Formats: sequence, C-alpha cells, structure tokens
Amino acid sequence: MLYGGDYNPEQWPEETWAEDAALMKEAGVNMITLGVFSWARLQPGPDTWDFAWLDRLLDLLHGHGIAVDLATATASPPAWLVRAHPEVLPVRSDGVRLEFGSRQHYCPSSPVYREAAVTLARRIAERYRDHPALALWHIHNEYGDHVTECFCAESAADFRRWLRARYTDLDALNFAWGTAFWSQRYGSWDEIEPPRDAPGPVNPTQTLDWRRFCSDALLACYQAEKDVLDEVSPGVPVTTNFMSMFKALDYWEWASREDFVSDDAYPDPADPEAHITAAMNYDLMRSLKGGRPWLLMEQAPSAVSWRPVNVPKRPGLHRLWSLQTVARGADGVMYFQWRASRAGAEKFHSALLPHGGTRSRGWAETVRFGAELAKLGPVAGSRTEAEVAIVLSWDSWWALEQEDHPSTRLDLRAIIASWYRELWRRNIAVDFVPPEADFTRYRLVLAPNLYMLRSETAERLTRFVAGGGHLACGFFSGIVDEHDHIHLGGYPAPLRDALGVVVDEFWPVPDDRTVPVESAVAGAAEGTVAGAATLWSEWLDVTTAEPVASYAGGPLGGRPAITRNVHGDGLGWYFGCHLPSALGAVLDAAGVRPAHETPAGVEATRRGEFLFLLNHTDAVSRVSGLSGIDLLSGATVRDELELGPLGAAVLTPNPAPER
Amino acid sequence: MLYGGDYNPEQWPEETWAEDAALMKEAGVNMITLGVFSWARLQPGPDTWDFAWLDRLLDLLHGHGIAVDLATATASPPAWLVRAHPEVLPVRSDGVRLEFGSRQHYCPSSPVYREAAVTLARRIAERYRDHPALALWHIHNEYGDHVTECFCAESAADFRRWLRARYTDLDALNFAWGTAFWSQRYGSWDEIEPPRDAPGPVNPTQTLDWRRFCSDALLACYQAEKDVLDEVSPGVPVTTNFMSMFKALDYWEWASREDFVSDDAYPDPADPEAHITAAMNYDLMRSLKGGRPWLLMEQAPSAVSWRPVNVPKRPGLHRLWSLQTVARGADGVMYFQWRASRAGAEKFHSALLPHGGTRSRGWAETVRFGAELAKLGPVAGSRTEAEVAIVLSWDSWWALEQEDHPSTRLDLRAIIASWYRELWRRNIAVDFVPPEADFTRYRLVLAPNLYMLRSETAERLTRFVAGGGHLACGFFSGIVDEHDHIHLGGYPAPLRDALGVVVDEFWPVPDDRTVPVESAVAGAAEGTVAGAATLWSEWLDVTTAEPVASYAGGPLGGRPAITRNVHGDGLGWYFGCHLPSALGAVLDAAGVRPAHETPAGVEATRRGEFLFLLNHTDAVSRVSGLSGIDLLSGATVRDELELGPLGAAVLTPNPAPER
Amino acid sequence: MLYGGDYNPEQWPEETWAEDAALMKEAGVNMITLGVFSWARLQPGPDTWDFAWLDRLLDLLHGHGIAVDLATATASPPAWLVRAHPEVLPVRSDGVRLEFGSRQHYCPSSPVYREAAVTLARRIAERYRDHPALALWHIHNEYGDHVTECFCAESAADFRRWLRARYTDLDALNFAWGTAFWSQRYGSWDEIEPPRDAPGPVNPTQTLDWRRFCSDALLACYQAEKDVLDEVSPGVPVTTNFMSMFKALDYWEWASREDFVSDDAYPDPADPEAHITAAMNYDLMRSLKGGRPWLLMEQAPSAVSWRPVNVPKRPGLHRLWSLQTVARGADGVMYFQWRASRAGAEKFHSALLPHGGTRSRGWAETVRFGAELAKLGPVAGSRTEAEVAIVLSWDSWWALEQEDHPSTRLDLRAIIASWYRELWRRNIAVDFVPPEADFTRYRLVLAPNLYMLRSETAERLTRFVAGGGHLACGFFSGIVDEHDHIHLGGYPAPLRDALGVVVDEFWPVPDDRTVPVESAVAGAAEGTVAGAATLWSEWLDVTTAEPVASYAGGPLGGRPAITRNVHGDGLGWYFGCHLPSALGAVLDAAGVRPAHETPAGVEATRRGEFLFLLNHTDAVSRVSGLSGIDLLSGATVRDELELGPLGAAVLTPNPAPER
Repeated sequence: MLYGGDYNPEQWPEETWAEDAALMKEAGVNMITLGVFSWARLQPGPDTWDFAWLDRLLDLLHGHGIAVDLATATASPPAWLVRAHPEVLPVRSDGVRLEFGSRQHYCPSSPVYREAAVTLARRIAERYRDHPALALWHIHNEYGDHVTECFCAESAADFRRWLRARYTDLDALNFAWGTAFWSQRYGSWDEIEPPRDAPGPVNPTQTLDWRRFCSDALLACYQAEKDVLDEVSPGVPVTTNFMSMFKALDYWEWASREDFVSDDAYPDPADPEAHITAAMNYDLMRSLKGGRPWLLMEQAPSAVSWRPVNVPKRPGLHRLWSLQTVARGADGVMYFQWRASRAGAEKFHSALLPHGGTRSRGWAETVRFGAELAKLGPVAGSRTEAEVAIVLSWDSWWALEQEDHPSTRLDLRAIIASWYRELWRRNIAVDFVPPEADFTRYRLVLAPNLYMLRSETAERLTRFVAGGGHLACGFFSGIVDEHDHIHLGGYPAPLRDALGVVVDEFWPVPDDRTVPVESAVAGAAEGTVAGAATLWSEWLDVTTAEPVASYAGGPLGGRPAITRNVHGDGLGWYFGCHLPSALGAVLDAAGVRPAHETPAGVEATRRGEFLFLLNHTDAVSRVSGLSGIDLLSGATVRDELELGPLGAAVLTPNPAPER
Repeated sequence: MLYGGDYNPEQWPEETWAEDAALMKEAGVNMITLGVFSWARLQPGPDTWDFAWLDRLLDLLHGHGIAVDLATATASPPAWLVRAHPEVLPVRSDGVRLEFGSRQHYCPSSPVYREAAVTLARRIAERYRDHPALALWHIHNEYGDHVTECFCAESAADFRRWLRARYTDLDALNFAWGTAFWSQRYGSWDEIEPPRDAPGPVNPTQTLDWRRFCSDALLACYQAEKDVLDEVSPGVPVTTNFMSMFKALDYWEWASREDFVSDDAYPDPADPEAHITAAMNYDLMRSLKGGRPWLLMEQAPSAVSWRPVNVPKRPGLHRLWSLQTVARGADGVMYFQWRASRAGAEKFHSALLPHGGTRSRGWAETVRFGAELAKLGPVAGSRTEAEVAIVLSWDSWWALEQEDHPSTRLDLRAIIASWYRELWRRNIAVDFVPPEADFTRYRLVLAPNLYMLRSETAERLTRFVAGGGHLACGFFSGIVDEHDHIHLGGYPAPLRDALGVVVDEFWPVPDDRTVPVESAVAGAAEGTVAGAATLWSEWLDVTTAEPVASYAGGPLGGRPAITRNVHGDGLGWYFGCHLPSALGAVLDAAGVRPAHETPAGVEATRRGEFLFLLNHTDAVSRVSGLSGIDLLSGATVRDELELGPLGAAVLTPNPAPER
Repeated sequence: MLYGGDYNPEQWPEETWAEDAALMKEAGVNMITLGVFSWARLQPGPDTWDFAWLDRLLDLLHGHGIAVDLATATASPPAWLVRAHPEVLPVRSDGVRLEFGSRQHYCPSSPVYREAAVTLARRIAERYRDHPALALWHIHNEYGDHVTECFCAESAADFRRWLRARYTDLDALNFAWGTAFWSQRYGSWDEIEPPRDAPGPVNPTQTLDWRRFCSDALLACYQAEKDVLDEVSPGVPVTTNFMSMFKALDYWEWASREDFVSDDAYPDPADPEAHITAAMNYDLMRSLKGGRPWLLMEQAPSAVSWRPVNVPKRPGLHRLWSLQTVARGADGVMYFQWRASRAGAEKFHSALLPHGGTRSRGWAETVRFGAELAKLGPVAGSRTEAEVAIVLSWDSWWALEQEDHPSTRLDLRAIIASWYRELWRRNIAVDFVPPEADFTRYRLVLAPNLYMLRSETAERLTRFVAGGGHLACGFFSGIVDEHDHIHLGGYPAPLRDALGVVVDEFWPVPDDRTVPVESAVAGAAEGTVAGAATLWSEWLDVTTAEPVASYAGGPLGGRPAITRNVHGDGLGWYFGCHLPSALGAVLDAAGVRPAHETPAGVEATRRGEFLFLLNHTDAVSRVSGLSGIDLLSGATVRDELELGPLGAAVLTPNPAPER
C-alpha cells in the first residue's frame, strides 16, 4: 500500500528538506510525488536548466527508502514562455485571453506549448530514468482543471483538422451537423469556427463535436508526453491524475492510454451523502481499466481551500474515507500535500504536516493512519467482482446536457448518483462500463439516462436481454444517434423491442413540482415502486411491456410510469419518470447479491477475500453473520462485529500473510 | 381560415416531400410558409443561386391546392457572407463580436448585410411573383429575436446619422440628453458613441435614443425589403412575424409599414394564467392595425424547446388556445413547424407531424383541429368593438424601465397584464392604443403606467375627460417629457387638472412587502378598493379630487391611495399605488359592458355576430342566457350551454352560411 | 455649523440662479459646493476655457453671504479629451475598455488624464484663490466610485513601477508573492501584469499588492492636485469627499493627506439598523484624523436613486439622522444636492429643493432643519473621548476577503458592524485606530478580525496587555504577515502569549447553520456568553487562558469557544467563533463607561460638554438622570427627558453661549 503525497520543496528553504524526510519516515510514507509545479524552477529560461536541487531531493528521499512519483511538471508554463509567446495563453468563448498568475494557463492546441512541454518531459525523463528512487511517472496535473477549452485561432485550426479527420468530406459534416437548419451550411472547411459566444443557441452537433475535440486536444498533449516517457524510460508505469467523474474528459479513452489509473478525490465533509458519491467515483476508477487496482493520488487529510466554505474532517472521518478508497480498489492513499504551504492560493488546504507542525491533531492522524494502512498490505492487488453494470458514455453525457432539450435540469452525474445510491445502500457491487462493453458478463445492466445511443449498441443491448440479461433504462434514453439526430419511429426507437414501450411525448416536471406514482400491480407491496417522481415524466404507451407503476394524477393519470418487458429470456425495464427508489424491484427480479447485509449507513464491500465494513454513522452499529480476522484490530470476529462511530473493519477469513 | 405552418424541406430528403404534401392535404392545411431559413440553400455562394428545388416545392404544394407564404429568407446570412465580411456579425455592449453558428447573426446597420438581403429578396420576388401558389410575402423572421442591438463602429456611425436627423444641431442634443450633468457635453457629433459598457449608469436619454434607434435600424432593414417586394410583386400582401408584446420594437410604427399583422405566440402551458396574457397579446395584435384581423403565424402544437423546462399542452389545450386566437381576431392558425426536425437546436420543438409520425397523439390533433377550424370560415373578417382602451407607448416603456428610478422593479408588461386581467375576467373588450390615438372613440381610457407623456398627449387626455370620458391613470404616470426630463410643477404636472392630485414624493415598496389600503368612502362595500398594495405607494395630496381609498398604516397612513376627480363632464381616476383589483370601481363607474357574463375561468369574446365561449378550467362549466347555433358542434343552444373541461363553443345567432 | 450642498447651476438657465440664491438664504444655507462636474463647461476644448459663468456664480453667492466649497472638477473628463486620447478610458479585468457616457471614466494611471486634471485644478485655483467666497477646496469627487482599478497597459506599467519601489529587487518580490507555488516565478519585471481574468485563482499576494497599488494610484491623482492647491492657494483647507467605510481606499493614508475629513453618507431608510452602521461610519470619519471634527459633505434629504428600490425618509428621520452626524463629530451637514435635476441619471435623487418646489414637504424640512442646525453652533469644534478602540487595517481587510480561505463568507465590514452594535446599544464611545496606533491611550482594544498582522504590531498589542490593557481578538486574527504568509508555530502565532490559546484547525460554519455555545464558567449568568454562533468556529486549545464559553454540541462539543487570558497586568480575550452578543462580558470586565444609560433604541453620545440623545424608535421614550438645557428646544431638563418618536435633544449643562 502506497502512502505519501505531493511535496513542493521549492516553497521551503533547503534546511527543511532533511526534517521533512525524517518526518516522512516517521509517518510511514513510502511514496512522494515531486515536481508537479516545478517548471519555472527546472527551466528558469528558454535555454537554462536547473536540476541540481531535484537531484539532491531524489537522493535524499531514496536515502530514506522513499520512492518517487516524478511529475513532468508541464501543467503551468513559466512566465518567460507566455511573455515570449502570448498565444500560449488560453482564450475564453467571449474572446478574452486569460492572464498569467494562476495555473494551467495554456492553450491545449498551442504548438509552442506542446513543444515546450515535450522538451521538458524529455529532459526530466533523460535525467532521472535511471534514478533508483524513480517508481512512477506522473504526467502533467489534473488535465482540464480550470481550462478545458480554448477558443483561439490556433484552437480553431486544430478543430478544423480534427473535423477533417472525422468527416473527410464537407457534405458529411453538413449532414451530421444538420446545417440545413437555420441556414448554417458550410461551403468550405475554413468557414468553420469553434462555438464561440453567438446570438442564440449554437448548433448542437457542432457543440458536441467541440466537446469531443477538446477532450482529444488535451489527450494529444498527454499522449505526446507519454510517447517520450515510453521511449526514454520504458518499463516505468505512467499515469496522470484524474478528477473523479469529470465531464470534460472521456476517461474511457484516456484510461486506455495510461499504464494505471490514478485519481484526485475530494468529497465534501459538509455533505452528509459525500461518501456515497465518493464510492461511485471510486467504482468508476476501478472500472476504467477493467477492474485493475488504482491509486488515490490526491486527497485532503482534512479541509480543502477552494470551496466557498471549507469544513474539515471530524475525528475519524479521514481514516474512514481513506479506508473506503482501499475498499473500492485503491492500492495506495496519497495526499495533496505533504507540508502545508505558507503562501499562495492553497495555503489553507490541509496537509499531512499542518502549519501547527508535529503538535497538531493532523500530524497525529498522519502517523496513526500510516501505521494502519501498512496492515492492509495483503489487500493490494485484489479485485472486486460485480453482477451489475452501469453504462456511462461521455458522448451521451455531453449531448444530454446541451440546451434546447425538453428539460435543461438533467444532470447526468446526479441522476447516475441517485441510481447508484440504491445499489450502495444494499451493498451491491457495480462496475461502470462504456457502451462498447461486453454486457453478457453481467446479470443486470443499468442505463440511467443513455440519451445518445448508437444503433449498434442498442442491438447488443437487445441481444443481451433476449439472451437472458436484465436491462433497466431510465427515461430519455435511446433518443439520438451519434450525430445527435433523432432515432425516428417512436422513442426510444432502437430499444423498443427490448423494452416493449413507445413514448409519445416528453413531460418534464417543472422545478419544485412532483408527480405521484403508484403501483400498477395488484397486491404489490406498498412503497416499492410508489413515490413522488421529480424532473421528468412521459406520455408512455406499452406495446409488449406490462406496467409496473402508473401515474396517480394529473394529465398523465393512469398512464404507465415504470414498465417491465419480457423479451426472449430476459427482462427489459423502463423508467419513464425519475424515481430511483423503485430500483429495488429491478434488483430483486435480477437476484443480484449484496457483499453482506448491514444496518443503514454501514457499507460492505469485497475485494477478493477481504470484506470491508465501514460505519458512516456517528452511532455504534452491529453487523452479524460474520467470521474472520480484522486486519486493522487483529481481533477475531465470530458472528457479530461491533463498529464504533465512523468505525471500520477489514475481515479476512484467514490470518493475514506476512507482507 | 388559414391553417398550416413553417415547412423546412431542406432538412429532409426530397422523397419525403410528396408524403408531406399528401399529409398536409389530409390535415386540411391550406397555407405553408417556405424558405424562412433557406438563404444558404438558395444562394450557396456570392454569385451562385439555386432555385430549382424551391420551384419544385411550390409546384408540388400548388398541385395539392396549398397556398404559399413565401419568406425572403434573410434572417440568417450564410457562412460565406460572414467570412468574407466579418463586420456583418453583431457586437455586444462589451465589444464581443458574436460568432456564426446560431441564427440572426447580423448587424442591423451593416450596409453589406442590408445589400445582400435586398438582393436576395429581389431575386426571390422576381422568380416567384407570378407563381400561382404565392399568397403572401413573409419578410425575414422575428426581427429582434436574439439580436436587438449592435454596438459596432458601423452601428455607431448609423446612430450618429439617426441623431443628426432627429436633432439637427448639437445644442438640441446636448439639451435633450442633459449633458450638463456629469460633464457629458458633446462638442462634435463624432464624439458620440452607443451606450456601451461604462463605469456607471449611462445617460438615460442617450440610452432611450439608442432604443429608439435600434427599433428604427431594424425597421430600415424591413423597409428596404418591403420596398423591393412592393416594386417587384405589387398586390401580394406583405408581413413580418411579430413576437407578441415585444419590448425592443415599436410595433405601432412597424405595423404601419405592414399590409397585415402576423404574430408568433408561445404561451407557456406551465403557467396557469398563460391564457390571460395570451389574450392581452392577441388584443394588441388586433389593435396594431386598428382592429383588422391578423394572422397567427406561429404557435407550437404542444411543447417548445427553448424554455428551461418545456411542458407540453395537455389534451384539449392546443384546441382551446388555438380557438382563443381566432376569438381575438386571428383569421388563421399557423405553426412552427410542419414536420419535427431530426437535428438542430429545435428538434425537440413540437410540430404538426411529430417524430412519432402519424401514429402519434399530436398528428391526431393536427387532423382533428384542421377539420374543426374549417368550420369557422364564417368568422373570418369579423371585428371586435371595444369601449375601453389601454394606452401603450413603446417610448414610455423604454424610458420607464431604465435604471436609477425610484424603483427598478417596474415591469410594464406585468403591470399592464395585471390591469388587463381585471378586464379579462369580466369579459370586457379592450383595444390597445398609442398615445397619438383618438381617445374620444372610447368610454374609458386606461393608462396603467404612462411614465413618459408628451404635453400634447396630456392635453388631449385632459380634453377627453372634460368632454365626458373616463380616464384611469396608474402611479408614476405623466412624469417626464419626450426627452425624459421631469415635467416640473408637481407630479404628474401635465395631468394635474384631469386628475386633481399632486404627488409630493414616490414611496416605492420594497420586495416582499405590502402596504394596506382601505376604502376612504363611508359605506363602500368591503373589498372593492381595499387590499394589499405592492411595488409602489406615494405621498399624495388631493387638490380637486376625492380620495376613494387610503393607506391603512405606515408612514403614509390615512393619506389618499386611490382618487377620483370630476373634471368637466368626465372622471379622472388616479392610482397612487399598485392595486389592480380596485379597477372594478373604475369599470363600474364607466358602465362598460361585458361580452357576456360567465363563471370564473370561462372567457367570452365577440367577433362581429359571433360569441366565443372558452372554458379555461378543468371542470365542467355552465353559461346561461345564450341562444344560437354552435359552429363547432352544430348544436342549437337555448339559454344554457354546458362546456366540458377546456371546452369551447362559437355561437352564431343564425345558421352558418355556406362557405 | 455648515449647511448647504452641491449646486449644479450648469443644468439650469441662468434666470434660475438668482432665485436659487434667495432660497438658499431663506433656508439658512451658508456653504455651497460648486463645480464638481463642470469640467466640460469650464474647458469646452483642449485650449478653450470658460470661467465667466462661474465668476458670476461666486459673486452671486458671495453677495448672499454664502461661502463656496470649490471643486477642482476633475472627476469626469470631457468627451473631447477621451476621444483625442482613448487610452484615458479605464479597462476592466476582462480587457473591456469602458465607454464614455457615465462618469468617472478615467484610468488612474493615465499620464494624459493626470496632466489634464492638474492643469484644470491649477487654472481654477489661480482664478479663484483670492475670491472672497472661497472657503474650501474640494478635490475631484468620491475617488473610487465606479472605477477603483484599471487593467490597461499604462496601469500595468505603473503597477510595475510601484512594485519596483516596494521590493527593489525581484527576488524579494518572488519571495513575497510565493512564486515558487504553481510555477509562477518571475525572471524579469516586465513579465509582471495586473491580476486580470485568469484560468483559476490568482496569486493572493499579487492581488493584495494590486489593491495596495490601486489605492495608491488614485492617491497619486489626489496628491498631484493637492500639491497644486497648496502651492497656488495656500491656507485654504483642502478635502476630498470620502464614501464612509470604503474598502478600495486606505483612508488612513488618504486622511493623512487631507486638511480635514469629509464624507458622503447614504444610510438606507429601508434598513431598520441603518442608524447603527451610520454611527460606525461617522466614528470612523471622526477617527481618521485623530478625533478632529469632520464635515458631512453629502447626504440625501430623503430618497436616493441608485438603489434597486429607493425608500424615502419618513417624517422626522432626515432631522434625526442629520443630528446624528453632528453627535458623532460633524461640524456641518451638507447634501447632494441643492436643486433636484430635471434630467440625467440622478433626477430622482431627492434634493433640498425638490421638483415640486417650495410647496413640497421636502422644502419645508430644508428650511426647518436649517434653522435648527444653527442652534448647534456651540457644538462645533468639540470632541469625543473614547476608552475603547477598534483596530481597522485596510491591508488586513483586503487580505481577509480574498478567495481560497477557510470561508469566503467573511465580510469584514459586517463583522466589525456586529461588534460595533454591542458598543452602540450600550452608548459606549469608540475610536477606530490603525494597527500603527498607540494602544495605551485606551482601556480596551477590539480586533474583530485582524487576519493580517505584522509581528511588530502583535508585539505592541502583547505589551499593551502586559501593561494592563484589555484586548479582545476575534477569530482568524494574527494569521498572516504583511506578505500574506502564514505565521508558523500554531495560530495565532504572534498573539499566543497575549491570548494564551492555540488554534489547531479552522471550522467555518456553512451558510444557514449555527453552532451552539454555552457558558463554561460555573454560576455565570445565562445568556451573557451563550448563544448560536454563525460563520465560524475553531478547534481551539487553551495554553494559559481559561475557557469562558464552550461549544455545546457537534464535533467541537466541549471545546473552548471564547477564552480569557491573564497576561501581565491585563486581559486577553479570544473569540474562536462569531458570537458578538458575548462582547458584554468583555466590556463589563474592562469597566468602560457609557455616555449615558438609555432605553433600547435611544442613542446617547457626548461631544465635549454636550450630550446628544437620539430616539431611533417610533415610540415615545423617556431617559432619566439628566439635567441641563436642550439646545434644540431651549427647554430646561430636570432628571427625566421625554423624547417623541424620532425625537432628539442636545443637552448642555450651561446656557448656550451667544454664537
């Protein structure tokens, strides 16, 4: 289990470094990330390089037995570069060129930036490829943080190159973008520009392609550095730190270019359900490379500094949330940052070593958790098996949340989270999968809101059901093809066989209103599928499906709200409204099994033979039906386990092997 | 009665066209709007023209007996034009030039745009002036939608030309703008610019003149096309589609340049009072050309796609609201659009032929309503007589809603609507009139908030009262002259004779507070003029008027709130506060008569001999005291008529003549 | 006592001037401010000057015995200047250059503007230095209103000059700004730019230095004019009108450059506590030059026009609030403006002579109050003694309210006001002092939120306590040094000796939540230090202090919330949470005495021998224990004084001397 964090020694006099190394040792730190924002220090001028200080640091850490995750330092170009080449600075959709003075100030399509970044990465790789402390390569930092798009002329040219590659001829683009609408036909590639501020709504397919391009433009930056590292320093694993379920970057594509996935996770201690969306994010990280362990590259030991109000973690929460990352697939727990900064925009961000130094509560937790994490060595490498999959498509996400839809209130992340919550509270393991995945590996596939759906994917989903699979689709799924063109023939046209329904009209629900839903099945237990739907409803007709729930009033009163369709050997569920609490019926029908049954607020997850039990409540909880040894306490558990407030246990059926 | 809508065949393969024509026939469509966004298709390059496809379409429609409302297609210039002449694109007040990719992307003052538009209009007019399908000319589309103003240098020069024409010499401008204030004196015309983003509040008369200019600049675009059509295709009626009570364009002036008025009306089905403001808008449309029938050029059969949440029309609502437009003077009901788009920003806008095709609920309504509308042929051409007029002045509207007023919460449309509501629920017909109107045609003139009032108009209003008319003025009326200079001598100076009051000071009411008002007349029925005033109150003294209501507390306690003044043979009412419910006393005193007395929620309006009865409630309603034949059902009515939920009847005293 | 206001005769025909002078006389006006926005009139072109009209005005006023406060007229450059030199117009952080048409449209660093302003000031000074009406010089107008900063290239160059002067060498700047963070190191002065819109949070010390620079850049404009006036017209006192507790300008520094302080005060009549923050502002004005009387340069007789909703002053409020300014140190009450404008952005701002003329309520108040104010002549020059001081540091204010802090909800003005309110309702006099002040003059020093604290100041505060003083510090004080670098060693490091506490971690309180606080001292009276804290709490440990109050629940339950520390001969209080109501315990312990004890809502303040009693309630109030003569009514008071609603008295122990 890796333990450590970002270290920014540039901010401190060199005297401090030795003290830092000693304290790292004391805390059980075994991995340090170096160099993330060191560009200006490493390359003080176009032709000036200064590696001596970094040499000393790597030697120092190595001398203390600490491995290094070495950054390529390319996230923030130095002042001399942007002054010599002002066109490196990014431009907003209103034409404003953003100024130096913060970070991530670069145009992703800038050839000057790309060349300078690759040069820097090559220099660092060449210098340290053979250093014994080097364990990982860390490209750049949080791609897409602050700047996800640039509207400058250079970006426009790059966008046109990307479009030519995608469409080859202009007629194909004109068709895909539907430029017959609103007199938008292009007669030449040069007429095309990014979707800058315009008088009204901009062409939705243009905007969608822009999002695709922006993800790819940043990916090209990443790939250029990755190619250098692979060439100069083969065999050292390479990653870039993700930002959980982040809309701007298609992490399916990105993860395929990484050697392993790493994530920066910042759940908000002020949010009483933060641990549920955190679990969702971790499951996504685990899923991005098909279940392989991932690395928590950054978290905060306590408060962050970038929210409007930054609440710290109450005692026990840091430990519990850290263990949760391991429970959901992390093979290491790392932090931003080692030593709290004295100056700058993040000086109030908590750190492993707080401003108060070793006398602080924070430092005590750093040492205590380091020791505890070491006990989880046996867990490393183990994997989680899931019977349920949630389909997540960035293309569909981008297309769904565009304007001029029946409702602009659809937030895919929130909708997925509301479904995920039903799985989480039942301790049912779930994988995220892209639309291209092999669904037959699962018993149940969930598609909370798969607005954009290629016909090919719809066919595979239909075959999956016919072959005995269970599929549950949320409202407004299967509506458009990859060009954001409506699938004609009655919504959701490509899924009508699997689902046995046809939607006549969308009836979005205005803010602060609800639509009552009741069971449509005689004798059904009250409350399972009944409730107050929000966000959305539909004028829905069944063809081969049977209604499971129906609207209990209003213009849609009596019409089907949730339906179930026998198709071949499987079952196709359709949710015409937003009522995630009704998902229980789907899970029951699919017969998917929990990791363990637990009281409310206690999370149970399995990694291989290890059962994690995490009490997210402030009360004592008791879980029964257990046996094994708790890796954390060393205690043997027979049937009942008592977990204190925010308590945790990691059960193994056998004594932990020597590490 | 015209029935049809916008048709955008460019968006569909030509195979679809024949099917469309056949379905139009089936639905009873007799008029189709063509070419609204066809510029890029008709003129693919500066010197390239392609009319063949449009020839075929006009022939096809003519072959099916469908007339064509042919657009000049000038609302959205093609990409090649804006790339060759980037200065055609409009500029915001912050200097950002807006990008191509949406629609209506042109500077109204651009000579390049104007010339290109006129050339296009001429080409189309020359080609189709003799086509037998041609019935109407449709200039441009919704002038002012998205872009109502442009702040570029070309617009600035045009603004200066407009100012020179208005003021002739600079001293007159300096006086009108009050440039002695804040050191703003201009020494040369060239020093004047549009009211771009400035450090603080911009000169209010400059801003007012800017609004006047912007309406005129767009009108000049319209007029240039109108001149071509009148020249090339004389005798074919010309219109441009209005956007109901739209602030940016002075529709009194605009309507005077049209052959008939047409309107695009989109009441929100989620608004329970939408039918009242819709009625208000239709009465305005009817009034714009002195009571002549108008054409509903666009409405949605069900939901639109441009609101944040787009609720569809529940069954019956489309029919009811369509009949309401006829009841209030429309001689045709048309739609955006015929066939729902597959792609683009409006693909989720409802259409006569939905994505679901002929099996959908929407299509059934299209066919059913087409047949029903045909029964109303006898209504066409008939007119409505009103005893009440509401004064609406765009100048005053623009001036009223500027900043640095006693309250910035005054929304003229909402204030007028609140007065209109009192007329609507009593079924009292009302005309809108401009300040220049002949008031003597009316029994009662209402001026809900006539902030800007020329002395000449005030004199005519005063003579109107002296001659026996009834006038009711809302608060903050008669305050400034045409330059936005205060009428000195005690507010509202030019109306003090007619109203018999003097306002010492404005006491606007903060948000979420109210001021209690009670009757000031002994023995008056409770509730008629009592209530909780919002928005505004005043320190008011009567000179010759008598208080009708007074404030029941607060610093103004006991002072007059609503007053009545006998002046000559007439009556001048003044509302010092916002309390529209008190309007009943005014209506009673004037003795104005309803079209018919109906239960709450049932609207009664007359067009000539026809009495429309529209039940806007979801319950059965009964109206008594009626006789005649219902054109819709063919039933004979004797005394009582029962209207189902959202039901309607159109009574004629005589059997309907053959059409 | 000065009485008068701004007069803008340019806005009126010259016929009006004589009438104005006569009415001024009638109202008791003895001072008029002239020329504030007269630049365009005085200098109609680059080489054209017109002083004749102003000559006549000064003569006219002098002839009526009215003195003149003559403005340098430099607040709004004329159109010809900004058109000849467009670079004079200010630029926003997004690069938009603001347009002419409002006021205050100039870049503070523009050499063209500065030279033109100084030339104008010199011309005016040379012409009127010997005019007998001249009494005061009024530089510019409300520096910083609308434009407090400019981001143009000229400003950037000026910023760099300022930085060079501050830091001398670039290493010092790099250290101060912490540019090691986020790769921001500067290799040359030319690489530095203002904190324009950037991708994310901008370097906080850069932003802080920018605020310091912006205050200084405007101050340089002021100083350039001041130098001219001192040279050309020595002996005539010079001021510029402040805007109460205004964040953008460091009024400690500004006031040191003035001959006397003047203020523009606009409390909101719609705010029921406006008189308390008004009192706070006046105490600051009194404090800015060490207790010397100041001049109320502008107030509104009734409503203003620039709020969203502008409520007038109810009868009696104008008098009461005017007397309050005198009670708190003003030696004159002046207004914006004499005669209400007919046109322009401020035409609805109330004036001494309203639109309604001499028949209006407003005019009657103008005359009545003029007579009353004259009775207060004996008060002029007298001073207030305070035992309590509040430390106010603009540096700390700027630093505190930057982003990326534990909470962005800290509004220093509101926090100070919440402490001030506790003093106000006890009638305890208070001075504001800068951090550099001699604290030993006070019994009690309050530091509500002194985030930025130089070590030197902390040492003086600590010595002050050791020497017997009482100090009360609010939360988040003593956190950073002058570079916004954390004081290491446990917060609040430099105050730990004085306060006897160490803060482990900040626990800001989310919006709409509170934290319960209870007394930690056995037998303490309920309610004194108990309550619901908002905004902030802390994980606090005492070293030598004793807890006075503690948290009554939540993760901090039982920990100290408010503490008291005996240090040497004095007492150091610390508020770890926001609970200003607990300040009573501090005041009791310090034994500070009220001006007089009064019922709730009645304000008592002393100036020299005069006791002001102001009833801010709408009910009759009785104050006992008094004796003397009321200057306003002439009545002799023995023990009990009855004050009517909004009533006031000014007691002198002796008969008022002849004036």
